[in-house]
Amino acid sequence: MLKQIQLIRNHKVFETFIIFIIMASALLVGVKTYDMSSAVVNLLYFMDLFITVIFVLEISIRFAAEERKWAFFKDPWNIFDSVIVAVSLIPIENTDMALVARLVRVFRVMRMISFIPELRVLLNSLLIALPRLGYVMALMFIIFYIYAAIGSLFFEDINPFLWGDISTAMLTLFRVMTFEDWTDVMYETNEVYAWSWIFYISFIFLTAFAFLNMVIGIVVNVLEEEHQRELQADEHYVSLADLKVEIQELKALIERQSVGATDNRSPDRRSPDQ
Amino acid sequence: MLKQIQLIRNHKVFETFIIFIIMASALLVGVKTYDMSSAVVNLLYFMDLFITVIFVLEISIRFAAEERKWAFFKDPWNIFDSVIVAVSLIPIENTDMALVARLVRVFRVMRMISFIPELRVLLNSLLIALPRLGYVMALMFIIFYIYAAIGSLFFEDINPFLWGDISTAMLTLFRVMTFEDWTDVMYETNEVYAWSWIFYISFIFLTAFAFLNMVIGIVVNVLEEEHQRELQADEHYVSLADLKVEIQELKALIERQSVGATDNRSPDRRSPDQ
Amino acid sequence: MLKQIQLIRNHKVFETFIIFIIMASALLVGVKTYDMSSAVVNLLYFMDLFITVIFVLEISIRFAAEERKWAFFKDPWNIFDSVIVAVSLIPIENTDMALVARLVRVFRVMRMISFIPELRVLLNSLLIALPRLGYVMALMFIIFYIYAAIGSLFFEDINPFLWGDISTAMLTLFRVMTFEDWTDVMYETNEVYAWSWIFYISFIFLTAFAFLNMVIGIVVNVLEEEHQRELQADEHYVSLADLKVEIQELKALIERQSVGATDNRSPDRRSPDQ
Amino acid sequence: MLKQIQLIRNHKVFETFIIFIIMASALLVGVKTYDMSSAVVNLLYFMDLFITVIFVLEISIRFAAEERKWAFFKDPWNIFDSVIVAVSLIPIENTDMALVARLVRVFRVMRMISFIPELRVLLNSLLIALPRLGYVMALMFIIFYIYAAIGSLFFEDINPFLWGDISTAMLTLFRVMTFEDWTDVMYETNEVYAWSWIFYISFIFLTAFAFLNMVIGIVVNVLEEEHQRELQADEHYVSLADLKVEIQELKALIERQSVGATDNRSPDRRSPDQ
Repeated sequence: MLKQIQLIRNHKVFETFIIFIIMASALLVGVKTYDMSSAVVNLLYFMDLFITVIFVLEISIRFAAEERKWAFFKDPWNIFDSVIVAVSLIPIENTDMALVARLVRVFRVMRMISFIPELRVLLNSLLIALPRLGYVMALMFIIFYIYAAIGSLFFEDINPFLWGDISTAMLTLFRVMTFEDWTDVMYETNEVYAWSWIFYISFIFLTAFAFLNMVIGIVVNVLEEEHQRELQADEHYVSLADLKVEIQELKALIERQSVGATDNRSPDRRSPDQ
Repeated sequence: MLKQIQLIRNHKVFETFIIFIIMASALLVGVKTYDMSSAVVNLLYFMDLFITVIFVLEISIRFAAEERKWAFFKDPWNIFDSVIVAVSLIPIENTDMALVARLVRVFRVMRMISFIPELRVLLNSLLIALPRLGYVMALMFIIFYIYAAIGSLFFEDINPFLWGDISTAMLTLFRVMTFEDWTDVMYETNEVYAWSWIFYISFIFLTAFAFLNMVIGIVVNVLEEEHQRELQADEHYVSLADLKVEIQELKALIERQSVGATDNRSPDRRSPDQ
Repeated sequence: MLKQIQLIRNHKVFETFIIFIIMASALLVGVKTYDMSSAVVNLLYFMDLFITVIFVLEISIRFAAEERKWAFFKDPWNIFDSVIVAVSLIPIENTDMALVARLVRVFRVMRMISFIPELRVLLNSLLIALPRLGYVMALMFIIFYIYAAIGSLFFEDINPFLWGDISTAMLTLFRVMTFEDWTDVMYETNEVYAWSWIFYISFIFLTAFAFLNMVIGIVVNVLEEEHQRELQADEHYVSLADLKVEIQELKALIERQSVGATDNRSPDRRSPDQ
Repeated sequence: MLKQIQLIRNHKVFETFIIFIIMASALLVGVKTYDMSSAVVNLLYFMDLFITVIFVLEISIRFAAEERKWAFFKDPWNIFDSVIVAVSLIPIENTDMALVARLVRVFRVMRMISFIPELRVLLNSLLIALPRLGYVMALMFIIFYIYAAIGSLFFEDINPFLWGDISTAMLTLFRVMTFEDWTDVMYETNEVYAWSWIFYISFIFLTAFAFLNMVIGIVVNVLEEEHQRELQADEHYVSLADLKVEIQELKALIERQSVGATDNRSPDRRSPDQ
């Protein structure tokens, strides 16, 4: 029984069919954003139902095919898939929760990532890169926090919409960092505080510089990793240190031989009894 | 006959003349965008006719010079040239199709690329680089699609011009990615949904990060290719592994000799009959 | 006595407590930017007082724990901490200087950097990188200065707000460099001086190019430093030159042996008395 | 006489004084952009006169110190200096040419570059890098030209200010490339031609991609040059190929010796007459 289910799960046709269904579900999400006649809406409703049923079946098969059931929930993508499918089962159409139901259907598009290994690898590499940026992020946050506190302190009365409190001010500073109409923000405060251009220019320099540092850090890291990976991938890799060992062995060999030759040179002297 | 045509085709004067004509055709395209007196318009009309005739002659010569006729259509640039010239022959001035006729004349500027080998190489390198970005592009598209679906779901009633359907929403998100007045888009939705800044900031981070990853990927790829190309270009390239082989041969040599020396050391013992 | 104070200063609990207090002080700075009832304001006032007292105690302990008192003021971070804490002691609430008092409290957030070694390293690396950009910065400044002088000379009458004097013009040019509504600036001057687009485009190209050069310079520098650091970190590092020495020693060895062997070959000739 | 002038020219005090004068001249240019009382204007007039006189003297000394006079005009910076100083001598204040006179004084700031060697090197490196970007620039220009022709063809009636003729259209496309209010440009044409977003998005992708390619090309180039420069700078540089030669010499040595040893092994057989 288990063997048969595993056969189904690993079958090429099964996989292709599920990918096709995921794409159909993604398309459905897109189509629903357009205005449609009620006939089409009805059709889409049934298609949605059909897709949900297929997904339930698919996850059931994948779960049944697992030899140790608890191993299934060790893969975060499996948990993600199960939750998404479970939530789409709840009958909440035409209620207040309709929005949530539609949102869940949107997240089903992410199943594309869980199904195509290359995308999974890519997303993982993005997630793995995040922590190593930790301290730069922390420094950035402190810079933002200090500038936001100063901005909120001085500019709150000028424009409370932009500088009302520290979180609003941080959002405004993010806007300044993206250069989005930052001069409008500056001209406004510059009228009251003539020095305020220093505030903006220094902020832009600091964040741009920190950002640059971060990017360069990643580039250097990636290049090193690539280099390391290459070395390990090459079975026949020979390092300079390996070569040195080889040459030193050579030396030892010749020295031993040299001693032998010396022995040979004066055999009678050293072994007169021969 | 074929030899003579080939002589013409490969002649320096012929090539220079055609490049001159292509540049004249490009200039003509530019000049036409200015307002001119009818006399000049007439002059341009005849110049255009002249250029078209030259192009027809040139492609005829290039086709005639080909030994195997079907080989001519194997080069995509030849097909491109032929189609462009063929379409400019259709007499559609003063009709509804006049715009198409002018458009075809614009594309004749691209013949510059097909004629200058360095530009062809450059364009090819751009096209070759595209597929290796395939999966990053796919991931980007999924990110865009999900955010567009969510945006369309929640923000459609706030501003249908920006979030009306999923394709409009994707265009709006591309605008957000380029930081073009993205705060206007955000402030509008922020009034209804106070959390919507998370939507924008997370989107900017995700796409910026994916984009960064893509750029770094290309840099690493290019550096590696360059490195590989260098190694192959250098005939006398010696790898560390080559050196190891050399040293091991040395060892073997010395060991053989050492055995010989040992033989030598005690010749009588081993060959008492000597 | 000194030993005991040093024990306190180096105690894990003391350090953790101070970091907690610094974070509380940072939070306080943020909370104060929101509107609050007078009860909360009072509470915050006492919390602020409490934090100030803790900071005074902390710096006193750190100062008392120092064996040579003057060494304490050699670390710029210690000076920074002392000044910040000293200024927050001055009782200036409800006076004209209230703003300064609040500003000082904002800078207390920077104590986070002085307390977390990784952030200190990061900030130092930013500061260290600045001087090596010195000449590029100088060139950038000259470019800005010349363009600002020209801009101020020609465009002052068109828009004194943007081009009134050389410092205003430099700010406007910084805006152009960030692409922030630069076309508005250009369209305005283009109406009077039709050539003014050349002014902007050439400026954008020059600064973008100089900036690019700077970034590339940093990348190359960082990669080299990284490479150098790696070499030094690896104790067992073997250079090609080391290997050459090894091989040459080998040669000398063999040559000596070879001479010995030659000696050996004709022992009687050279030592007839044997 | 020549010796004495050369002594003056090379004297540290002379050089420092001229740099001081150049900086004063630069400051003067900046100060003049502010509104001033007529007294200050008069003062500045005399300072300007003084600086001009100093510059004339300085160039005269530098010219007189040159052994072969025509060598002086081989350095483009000398020509630049001479022209700038010569033009500032023409008495054109209070005439229509006053603007030109002021402009020439602005360019005197560039003398800073000619006087500080590091800045000269930097500027040269910028200029040297330009030609190697030649073909990418050409490709970029063709892309711009074609898109501008298409834009001018279709969008001229929608907004002649942006798409009136091919040069205006190219400026608009440059604006789109810098993302400056590009959506405003797009939304306008999108109303008439619903497909026009493809025009903009494809243009942004093409130029961004070509630009990226250019940047990567420069990075790779710079890294390679750096690498090459390092190799040449290191006198004791040993290549792997050098090592191979060394090892092969070793082999030859051992083989020769091996032959000798063989000779040695059976001396009597080969030289029975011994």
